[in-house]
Amino acid sequence: MDWLETSIMARRGVAKGEERSTHEITEASQGTYHYVYGPFAKPVLTVEPGAVISVETHDAFEGKIRTEADKPSEKLNFPYLNPQNGPIRVEGAEKGDVIAIRIKEIRPRGEQPSGTTCLIPEFGGLVGTDVTAMLNPPLPELVRKVEVDPVKGVKWSDRITLPYEPFIGTLGVSPEIEAITSLQPDYYGGNMDLPDVGPGAILYFPVNTPGGYVYLGDCHAVQGDGELCGVAIEHPTVTTVHLDLIKGWSFKWPRLENDRFIMTIGSGRPLEDAARIAYRELTRWMARDYGFDELEAYMLLTQVGRVRLGNMVDPKYTIGASILKTYLTP
Amino acid sequence: MDWLETSIMARRGVAKGEERSTHEITEASQGTYHYVYGPFAKPVLTVEPGAVISVETHDAFEGKIRTEADKPSEKLNFPYLNPQNGPIRVEGAEKGDVIAIRIKEIRPRGEQPSGTTCLIPEFGGLVGTDVTAMLNPPLPELVRKVEVDPVKGVKWSDRITLPYEPFIGTLGVSPEIEAITSLQPDYYGGNMDLPDVGPGAILYFPVNTPGGYVYLGDCHAVQGDGELCGVAIEHPTVTTVHLDLIKGWSFKWPRLENDRFIMTIGSGRPLEDAARIAYRELTRWMARDYGFDELEAYMLLTQVGRVRLGNMVDPKYTIGASILKTYLTP
Amino acid sequence: MDWLETSIMARRGVAKGEERSTHEITEASQGTYHYVYGPFAKPVLTVEPGAVISVETHDAFEGKIRTEADKPSEKLNFPYLNPQNGPIRVEGAEKGDVIAIRIKEIRPRGEQPSGTTCLIPEFGGLVGTDVTAMLNPPLPELVRKVEVDPVKGVKWSDRITLPYEPFIGTLGVSPEIEAITSLQPDYYGGNMDLPDVGPGAILYFPVNTPGGYVYLGDCHAVQGDGELCGVAIEHPTVTTVHLDLIKGWSFKWPRLENDRFIMTIGSGRPLEDAARIAYRELTRWMARDYGFDELEAYMLLTQVGRVRLGNMVDPKYTIGASILKTYLTP
Amino acid sequence: MDWLETSIMARRGVAKGEERSTHEITEASQGTYHYVYGPFAKPVLTVEPGAVISVETHDAFEGKIRTEADKPSEKLNFPYLNPQNGPIRVEGAEKGDVIAIRIKEIRPRGEQPSGTTCLIPEFGGLVGTDVTAMLNPPLPELVRKVEVDPVKGVKWSDRITLPYEPFIGTLGVSPEIEAITSLQPDYYGGNMDLPDVGPGAILYFPVNTPGGYVYLGDCHAVQGDGELCGVAIEHPTVTTVHLDLIKGWSFKWPRLENDRFIMTIGSGRPLEDAARIAYRELTRWMARDYGFDELEAYMLLTQVGRVRLGNMVDPKYTIGASILKTYLTP
Repeated sequence: MDWLETSIMARRGVAKGEERSTHEITEASQGTYHYVYGPFAKPVLTVEPGAVISVETHDAFEGKIRTEADKPSEKLNFPYLNPQNGPIRVEGAEKGDVIAIRIKEIRPRGEQPSGTTCLIPEFGGLVGTDVTAMLNPPLPELVRKVEVDPVKGVKWSDRITLPYEPFIGTLGVSPEIEAITSLQPDYYGGNMDLPDVGPGAILYFPVNTPGGYVYLGDCHAVQGDGELCGVAIEHPTVTTVHLDLIKGWSFKWPRLENDRFIMTIGSGRPLEDAARIAYRELTRWMARDYGFDELEAYMLLTQVGRVRLGNMVDPKYTIGASILKTYLTP
Repeated sequence: MDWLETSIMARRGVAKGEERSTHEITEASQGTYHYVYGPFAKPVLTVEPGAVISVETHDAFEGKIRTEADKPSEKLNFPYLNPQNGPIRVEGAEKGDVIAIRIKEIRPRGEQPSGTTCLIPEFGGLVGTDVTAMLNPPLPELVRKVEVDPVKGVKWSDRITLPYEPFIGTLGVSPEIEAITSLQPDYYGGNMDLPDVGPGAILYFPVNTPGGYVYLGDCHAVQGDGELCGVAIEHPTVTTVHLDLIKGWSFKWPRLENDRFIMTIGSGRPLEDAARIAYRELTRWMARDYGFDELEAYMLLTQVGRVRLGNMVDPKYTIGASILKTYLTP
Repeated sequence: MDWLETSIMARRGVAKGEERSTHEITEASQGTYHYVYGPFAKPVLTVEPGAVISVETHDAFEGKIRTEADKPSEKLNFPYLNPQNGPIRVEGAEKGDVIAIRIKEIRPRGEQPSGTTCLIPEFGGLVGTDVTAMLNPPLPELVRKVEVDPVKGVKWSDRITLPYEPFIGTLGVSPEIEAITSLQPDYYGGNMDLPDVGPGAILYFPVNTPGGYVYLGDCHAVQGDGELCGVAIEHPTVTTVHLDLIKGWSFKWPRLENDRFIMTIGSGRPLEDAARIAYRELTRWMARDYGFDELEAYMLLTQVGRVRLGNMVDPKYTIGASILKTYLTP
Repeated sequence: MDWLETSIMARRGVAKGEERSTHEITEASQGTYHYVYGPFAKPVLTVEPGAVISVETHDAFEGKIRTEADKPSEKLNFPYLNPQNGPIRVEGAEKGDVIAIRIKEIRPRGEQPSGTTCLIPEFGGLVGTDVTAMLNPPLPELVRKVEVDPVKGVKWSDRITLPYEPFIGTLGVSPEIEAITSLQPDYYGGNMDLPDVGPGAILYFPVNTPGGYVYLGDCHAVQGDGELCGVAIEHPTVTTVHLDLIKGWSFKWPRLENDRFIMTIGSGRPLEDAARIAYRELTRWMARDYGFDELEAYMLLTQVGRVRLGNMVDPKYTIGASILKTYLTP
């Protein structure tokens, strides 16, 4: 039996985790992409729980970095970065509910798919930034374009080929009253840059505003832990997600489930706060839904908890904390 | 000669730092208060540079904590906290300009003015919070109501009277595309909770969006460095500000000037990032406007720079870095 | 061919990675255990490169927590915690060299081996501590004793069995002029609590003082990422290590090699500083020994770097950053 | 009446805060200076409570930076930096006691007193460092020598004169079992770089080891908050301190008293941890010695607490938190 049938989405979703309708958001139907996660934009699509949606995502630079001769500082126009598809309105979603998003497929878009990484001034994990403010001179700007092939992988150089392990860098729902740059991850999701958010995973986001308002974009062909220089292999994709709605499930930070583990996702600064959030949420999840005493969960996670570093470069850093499902079932 | 005549506002302002018109924003004319700093709200007032505006501010709890028997967790409805007056649209303000805000006067509002401080669960500098996530039990909720008198001071107890040293806790302009909770301080101002932002000070905010959109609220009768438990002596006021517009002055973070010093204000986490931002901005200011070499400024600030801790409790922490004007003039 | 034959230890070691002599440190021969990493203690053993040494380690509590009824705050006497074997003097080791430590075997000590975890007041990743100082009440003290079997695993409860995945929690060499509590990890190793430091791994530590002075102790039967509550499954062991000496290899922070990857280990606060140290060291390692341009290494690690969180509870936090060897070889 | 007569030192000291003997430590009698705070060095002087001691301190570079043409990276030999006088053994001091150190006088040493500041690679508040590890190129090395005159002040340039406001940059007692670089501040004092530690102040350090072992050095002619570039106006001095011993006073972090306020001093990373430590210690001090309820103290400090940033450049950052004595007395 496929694990999906035992997923929380299947067990608790309004649509029972079934695929009940199909939709697509093309570049044309999207029209203007969005640069904030918020409730002020008009939905580009309204769906019922059970909807499967194919989405034409842009890369994080909206395709503006075309060659290795381009200078990011000249091509990019802050804060108009990290363009997002959506918002997708989910019928019936209201505060106190959770939207489940199963990532069904990600494939590169374009005839000769390529990806982009680069060094951007004042951005990255090993350089002074706008907030870790330094007087040091910046690194040179560098752009690297690479071929992306779902089968052969990402051609880094003649010698090195990277695996194609795509995921959605930025995904989430709208805050209740805020509209926050799509460069930031937070309690509503956003720019988490967490490699686990790929095909096979189901994300759970608490609804903050009627209809939920799902946004997504910024798909990465492959990424290391921390997204060190701040720019993974950014590439335009057709990404297919499958949505469901869970009534009456209340928590604070994004959750993730796949065939092997459950994970909670925290974003904050300093990095230990991201870890604290993730682990406390996991402790609480184990206590509320899996029969653990909270301190027992705390002590068990000390022995078998796993941490994945999403990003250490965005306005908030992101960490996922997980525990294998084998420890949760009787 | 009054120092104001030599202020940057007077020297560079479109209205030459003059008072050219008077306005008021009452509770009635304000109508709905705001809980985000953003460009999506409708201006409650449009003024020309030189405007003097009296504003009826609410306390941070919109008056909902009335007695010492009230429980904050029951009375307060997150995120509808820290209500703001405005936005005030400044004619002619556009990106690349700076709005100058002189704080002319703050006085307590109401017949028997009182102030409120309290302990709120998961909030404060010496407790686990929503992001510095802990498993420890919370402190008890406590509310303290105190009499506030501009002359006699703040009556903390029979034994202890605190000075009335009012300032504006939350003040700033709109971000360009974001709408961010009024609980947060950032590059556009917001909830800085910096005691220097009181009568006699002039604040300078870079304009992010046409008209600038000035918001303010959250006045404190007195506050220690860091606003330790997260709640100063919150009180409703009539606050009078005087606005001007400076064309063609571009920088990133709020600046402040008074009769003695110039200050730059940074907000971030961890706290050292707030300090780094503030000091780098001050270094740059000294280099661009006062004839210092940047490294010379860096070395001089090492000897005479001063730091004021605004808050260590909000979503970002705030620090002001300053240098006496005596070191700047020939 | 065993990967060890191609290890750096085998290729560059004075003893060519060979086992040339065997030694043991028993409780009796150790006598007094040590609570600092420093050059002031007298070596308990002097060996030549190529030595294989079996060491009877205590658990982190020196066996003082015997039953689940014991109270850690009564049994433990800070700073006399985390007892260490050693120092082992390595003949010929001097500043500018590196000591290689291959972890050959770890097995539980005692007739009915058991392990201990517990909650200690003001210690742990989700509670206020001596430095992340809070006013919240502490959690209750709790002790948990578990059976440890190398084959059957760690018996957490009737329902849950954890794998036996032992590693050395505290391992390193002496600082040059300092003597630092064995509770702390730093540039010389120490209390890193990094699960990768187990059988099959080779650690490389730069020598700071003549003879190097190797200390070790604090073995864990199993541990999750971050050692969340601060106490893994602590257990006394017989741990066997194999030492070699590499002349003329100079770097700043501990390095690790196993059959699959190379790793650099950083310790610091806040946690992002630990990550920055680890990743910068890895960038430099790739540049100096594997033919990468430094910025090329930075960009490649962005795509395929991996991060392991050691501890988020000690005086400094520890992170290991790694890259698969497959990306390093032509 | 001089406030000293009502100081804690006078009220609780074994010598009642009286000056009972005079001593001196010259360069010659000191012999070798020390680079760690620890119990392993031999006392250079043993005194009884009430001793007044004149000490010839070196500057932080032991005088090795002689001209503005010197390159710090060539002249300085890490970790042999920040040379300390001492240790001074205080008769009768044992764990559970407190050593009081009144700073009586600091005057520049040498015929034509001068001071030194400089930019050192990988060191400072606005540059990448050994632990906030960056790939950015470093700033240029720069040395500045300035005339220091106790009356006329510090001659920064033809245009700018700084006040002579000397204090002891590094001061404290020995840890119990550790020996820690004199570059670091911590619970035992050390390199706090806090400008309040000047003439007129009394410092209180808990004793960790028999005799206490007082170290001092690293006097600054003047320094801004945070010691931004990491190097204040370093100068050799004759510094006179007056020691007393307080039996049966137990606390964890250094305390300070002057005529106006009491202060607690915390050192840690990130900077908010230093602030948390300082404020929690102050809360506890107010609760134990001044009759406040702990939560009452927490709420009062929210209104009138003051924070001084010592350093934001050392291995740990230092913050002093204070409250005016007027709030403490009936």
